[in-house]
Amino acid sequence: MRKIGVIGLGHVGATIAYTLVTKGIADELVLIDSKKDKAVAEEYDLRDTLSRLDTFTKIIPQNYAALADADIIITAFGDISAIQLDGDRFGELKHNITAVTEIAQKIKQTGFNGVLINISNPCDVITQLLQQKTGLSTNQVFGTGTFLDTARMQRAVGQALNEDPKNISGYVLGEHGESQFTAWSSVRVKGHPIQDIASARGLDLNDLDQRARRGGWLVFSGKHYTCYAIATCAIKLALAVLSDAHLACPTSVYLESYQHYIGYPSVIGRQGIIEVNKIELTLDEQNRLDSSAKIISTKLASFN
Amino acid sequence: MRKIGVIGLGHVGATIAYTLVTKGIADELVLIDSKKDKAVAEEYDLRDTLSRLDTFTKIIPQNYAALADADIIITAFGDISAIQLDGDRFGELKHNITAVTEIAQKIKQTGFNGVLINISNPCDVITQLLQQKTGLSTNQVFGTGTFLDTARMQRAVGQALNEDPKNISGYVLGEHGESQFTAWSSVRVKGHPIQDIASARGLDLNDLDQRARRGGWLVFSGKHYTCYAIATCAIKLALAVLSDAHLACPTSVYLESYQHYIGYPSVIGRQGIIEVNKIELTLDEQNRLDSSAKIISTKLASFN
Amino acid sequence: MRKIGVIGLGHVGATIAYTLVTKGIADELVLIDSKKDKAVAEEYDLRDTLSRLDTFTKIIPQNYAALADADIIITAFGDISAIQLDGDRFGELKHNITAVTEIAQKIKQTGFNGVLINISNPCDVITQLLQQKTGLSTNQVFGTGTFLDTARMQRAVGQALNEDPKNISGYVLGEHGESQFTAWSSVRVKGHPIQDIASARGLDLNDLDQRARRGGWLVFSGKHYTCYAIATCAIKLALAVLSDAHLACPTSVYLESYQHYIGYPSVIGRQGIIEVNKIELTLDEQNRLDSSAKIISTKLASFN
Amino acid sequence: MRKIGVIGLGHVGATIAYTLVTKGIADELVLIDSKKDKAVAEEYDLRDTLSRLDTFTKIIPQNYAALADADIIITAFGDISAIQLDGDRFGELKHNITAVTEIAQKIKQTGFNGVLINISNPCDVITQLLQQKTGLSTNQVFGTGTFLDTARMQRAVGQALNEDPKNISGYVLGEHGESQFTAWSSVRVKGHPIQDIASARGLDLNDLDQRARRGGWLVFSGKHYTCYAIATCAIKLALAVLSDAHLACPTSVYLESYQHYIGYPSVIGRQGIIEVNKIELTLDEQNRLDSSAKIISTKLASFN
Repeated sequence: MRKIGVIGLGHVGATIAYTLVTKGIADELVLIDSKKDKAVAEEYDLRDTLSRLDTFTKIIPQNYAALADADIIITAFGDISAIQLDGDRFGELKHNITAVTEIAQKIKQTGFNGVLINISNPCDVITQLLQQKTGLSTNQVFGTGTFLDTARMQRAVGQALNEDPKNISGYVLGEHGESQFTAWSSVRVKGHPIQDIASARGLDLNDLDQRARRGGWLVFSGKHYTCYAIATCAIKLALAVLSDAHLACPTSVYLESYQHYIGYPSVIGRQGIIEVNKIELTLDEQNRLDSSAKIISTKLASFN
Repeated sequence: MRKIGVIGLGHVGATIAYTLVTKGIADELVLIDSKKDKAVAEEYDLRDTLSRLDTFTKIIPQNYAALADADIIITAFGDISAIQLDGDRFGELKHNITAVTEIAQKIKQTGFNGVLINISNPCDVITQLLQQKTGLSTNQVFGTGTFLDTARMQRAVGQALNEDPKNISGYVLGEHGESQFTAWSSVRVKGHPIQDIASARGLDLNDLDQRARRGGWLVFSGKHYTCYAIATCAIKLALAVLSDAHLACPTSVYLESYQHYIGYPSVIGRQGIIEVNKIELTLDEQNRLDSSAKIISTKLASFN
Repeated sequence: MRKIGVIGLGHVGATIAYTLVTKGIADELVLIDSKKDKAVAEEYDLRDTLSRLDTFTKIIPQNYAALADADIIITAFGDISAIQLDGDRFGELKHNITAVTEIAQKIKQTGFNGVLINISNPCDVITQLLQQKTGLSTNQVFGTGTFLDTARMQRAVGQALNEDPKNISGYVLGEHGESQFTAWSSVRVKGHPIQDIASARGLDLNDLDQRARRGGWLVFSGKHYTCYAIATCAIKLALAVLSDAHLACPTSVYLESYQHYIGYPSVIGRQGIIEVNKIELTLDEQNRLDSSAKIISTKLASFN
Repeated sequence: MRKIGVIGLGHVGATIAYTLVTKGIADELVLIDSKKDKAVAEEYDLRDTLSRLDTFTKIIPQNYAALADADIIITAFGDISAIQLDGDRFGELKHNITAVTEIAQKIKQTGFNGVLINISNPCDVITQLLQQKTGLSTNQVFGTGTFLDTARMQRAVGQALNEDPKNISGYVLGEHGESQFTAWSSVRVKGHPIQDIASARGLDLNDLDQRARRGGWLVFSGKHYTCYAIATCAIKLALAVLSDAHLACPTSVYLESYQHYIGYPSVIGRQGIIEVNKIELTLDEQNRLDSSAKIISTKLASFN
């Protein structure tokens, strides 16, 4: 029996709930929002789908206690209106910093001992705080981090080269925010190093990196939030946990070397983070990762 | 190859697009909105899912010409802010009446000759206008109508009796609006007439009818729109068309007797409406259906 | 986390395993067969699918102990070669009667306390013996019974009337074998009693009952076994258990009145049989059900 | 509307048909076998699933003319009993060489102009003959080739390293037969070259290559055929064609340099083979590929 909780029912959390129900992934689904009528609204909009689906999901609204035996909790709380249009995800921090303490405490009280996947921004900081305040292990807690940004890089590269984005492998690393970067040394197109292709075809990789990032803001400026790609990333991670898939992908993962969470290659399974997948970076990439880590740690320091 | 167009990318249209992509239902998807940046935003939010999905969908934004060889067009335009909180779906009429003429004309110009499924409200009126103005046959055009309301009735009855909503069969008939009603004579619970159960258990059917309706407003008041149940209904209808499933369900269908569209049992297949499924009603139910039809025809008369 | 065991990997059991893996339904799958190399062969044929699927399933071959914490066990053992071509499913009894004792004992030893769904034939007899010998409650154990035969009746009626089989509701009752019968008083076509349609269109219901039955033998004579429809039935029941769906459908269920299992309407959920769905039969139908029950009880008596 | 034909309904063809129906992939499915009663048996076993599925597929048995407007034909004819247990897939050649001429002619007569995916063995030879005899372009015809063998390599490497097989990338090249080989220079584990891991962990790559191959025979010896992995490969290719996915994967593809089909990296889309994905091989690997090609061309020469 698969039991999943979603905390925070904005566009992202609600889309995740919708997908877990309509794809028949969750057998039980706990829905929690700071506004009770929002949780009940989503509950009813989803219950009204059940007679048109071939699967069934039991939906439990606004009940922290029901999370006690959940396999997974996905946190997607936040106030999108707090994001400045300059795109700094730290804009949401003030709002979320209050929320995280309260939510972590409530999760802890339930005795929940599964895996917690955090989406709330700033993702690396909030993931760290959730881990510390719930008392769950660093394996059990991770964030979507640059899994989304990597998807956008795959899309941007695929678009530039007329390729299926799945033909692009490699990683966006660092903070899920402005200091993130594509580790081009890791990127391959149908198995070929992208540098070779870039030289041959005159591709500007810096420009591509910008286009990956711009994609997010294109979405944001057109619909005032983003939800489908991030929800799809979270669903994929949740399935990897449920089935112990040992999925290799970048997430916001706790790195001993930095003593905090950051977007980096990992392997996901039943216990959460099964492994940090150490990769070789160029000196420049390593420097950018260190810089990005510093931005996260500075922010974290201001809360300890 | 399955090609589907969605016109109108509010919460409902966007959810339909998301589902067609993430369930791998559409091979090609044309997305059109009155605001170009909205269409592009949805295009990119969906393109960014593709590297996390096992399926692929080609997404074409803002291109009416691309609808020419589509199998299905789903219309979901409208301005939700125009709905009054008293719940009258005719509140959106003024806005949509302008939109419908323009959209129908553009569809007609493409030479589209597939099936058109309308969601835009007031559903029965807009469906009729779309049929007339596109010049498509009354078989090729139908609306979601009371397919959604029937789902809500199934949910409400299921909830009252602790049953899976799929164990409830039967129909909500009439206008997709305030004059709709549950034809209780058609409703069965696991095969048993609901009247027998209602007598035995002291169920108040009028109250249940209200609760089915209230469910929609519970959703609306908590999230300011409804999207998941209606999107799920539209997807089910689209699949029935694609696969020629001969799905028996209530839709907004053209009835010769009324000379306009209204929520009534139908059968859906490749050609759209395969059959009107005539059912026996009580005298009272027939009167309520006639009254509901009159409301639709009065509204239609004011536009002809 | 969903864990399912399949015991008996003939065509039916193997198809079920394939479906549980390729639809991503099971997170862990225990595969057991009387021949170890068959179980390992299926394990490897399924493991080789995993790099082509978007989901992951852990496959555990030949390990009864691994069933201890399974949610569901599906039993599909049997020797198809023992079925006589006259179609009497009791032909397999001799072989399966030995198997059932051994298998039930091994299941009991694991401490398994989930739901057991039996497919092995003669279905009603084997289901009863499995229930008695595992010591599980009569709720926790049920058989596919006439759920398959009802699907065939729906197909035959649908074919005769050019309808989607899902537009046909109603039940085949009794033994999953020669004495089964369609309870025509329960059958409806898009909500209309079939008797009305039969009169209007000159349909011979006895002939239709034969055609439903003949379908099974058409399959059997052309491919020497049947597997896809029965596997699909079993998967649907398993999903209803996992998600506590309260699915209303005929299964081989324990009826107090007969003191044994027989094909009859039931409701399926997390605990197995949630409810026996008592229906009204005509006098003739009741007599046929009683006769069918007597055939099962006679067979059972010979083993006690 | 998606229309697919399957020619040859042995275990592989039947499993493909079952999957196309139960996953709702095909809207219309044409089933053809050399034995009419086999085709009708599969038709009925599949029709009997339709009342238990949420999707619908129209099934058309034994009708070549119905292939005229199909999107895809999958050929899976063959006589498994002709394979010698030494594992040489050329054992089936004599039987299939007669079949291929007859089947290609019948396909040609329908005017079919879609994509043909061949599974029948010896895969590279039969694919070539099908292309020549149907008169379809070399883009429109390709074989599953080493797509299956690559899946087995991924499984074997994954098993040895306790990794999800999807974490392994790279290619098995050459004939779908005994002369195939893993191009280890192309293989990566979570992005790392396997040679580095092999050195570090003392892995014997030759042994792994054998184990990948042995997996197939483990399946064959335990169940006397293999079906699930190959069917899953074929389904993935068919979906890539339907959705124009530009899927990068090894198939049996026509290489100009050899003037015949052979297992090699390709890109699959609506037109079939969109691109041959040229990769760099070591000198030893190139030699092995040349040798493997010679085996195929020798065999082909004997038929021209």
